Amino acid sequence: MTNPVTKDRRHFEDLAVGEIIDLGSTHVSKDMITSFAREFDPFPFHLDEKAAKESLLGGLASSGWQTGALSLRMLVDNFLSTIASCGGLGFRDLKWKSPVMVNDTIGGTAKIAELRRSASHPQWGIVTLDFDITNQHGKPVMTMRLANLVECRNAEALA
Amino acid sequence: MTNPVTKDRRHFEDLAVGEIIDLGSTHVSKDMITSFAREFDPFPFHLDEKAAKESLLGGLASSGWQTGALSLRMLVDNFLSTIASCGGLGFRDLKWKSPVMVNDTIGGTAKIAELRRSASHPQWGIVTLDFDITNQHGKPVMTMRLANLVECRNAEALA
Repeated sequence: MTNPVTKDRRHFEDLAVGEIIDLGSTHVSKDMITSFAREFDPFPFHLDEKAAKESLLGGLASSGWQTGALSLRMLVDNFLSTIASCGGLGFRDLKWKSPVMVNDTIGGTAKIAELRRSASHPQWGIVTLDFDITNQHGKPVMTMRLANLVECRNAEALA
Repeated sequence: MTNPVTKDRRHFEDLAVGEIIDLGSTHVSKDMITSFAREFDPFPFHLDEKAAKESLLGGLASSGWQTGALSLRMLVDNFLSTIASCGGLGFRDLKWKSPVMVNDTIGGTAKIAELRRSASHPQWGIVTLDFDITNQHGKPVMTMRLANLVECRNAEALA
């Protein structure tokens, strides 16, 4: 029953509440901001430097959705790819605290906030992660709580 | 004080709780799925059809974050670009109900759930939108509640 791809990775039983994952960092370039915005969030303040200067943001800033996507990528690289992850379930309480401006570098941590074994599906557990994303000055830019499904090593433990 | 870009658009005072925005629809191709996944969510079940068939998802499926980004784009095209929007604040309770598979067409509605004038910043109001995204069979794929900042036409109304 063990997935051959993930059998050597950490499973649900190997995780602990309170574990803090270092997400590393990502530089956010002008090209990254404008290409994401053209596809998903085509507002002048994500596309054009002059319009952005005159906007509430005061300069070219990334789509908040891009900040989330880059944070997800950092989580995949530094955590989800090292465990027996089966995919995400959803998010709670995403808050954009301050804009990510062109040439900012974002990074931060994700903390294991909850671990819950599925009652109906004993082969799976749910790990809840609290993201804390900041810019290069340590200023908070985004928080959110992600729920992700993880394989259990021993599917019969609850039976 | 009126932004010349948005002065002819609907402002906070022009919105009503209960208004339902038709988000139109978006076809999700294999290229869209794999290019988004390579950048933000590089799991085999978002990148490779064979690996995807053997996964929990049973076939190539989009990153859930991509489903959200495509829904945001539909909201920009069908609503946010027609009002005096200043940007997003965050969202609550994003849930992926079922996967978006290759060549699915997603669409749906966003409903104005709440309208709240900012007490501290009378030039702004907050519109809360409930997304209801389904696939071409009418099966729910995602729900979420987004909060967005909108200019008020009359900034002194609360003074």
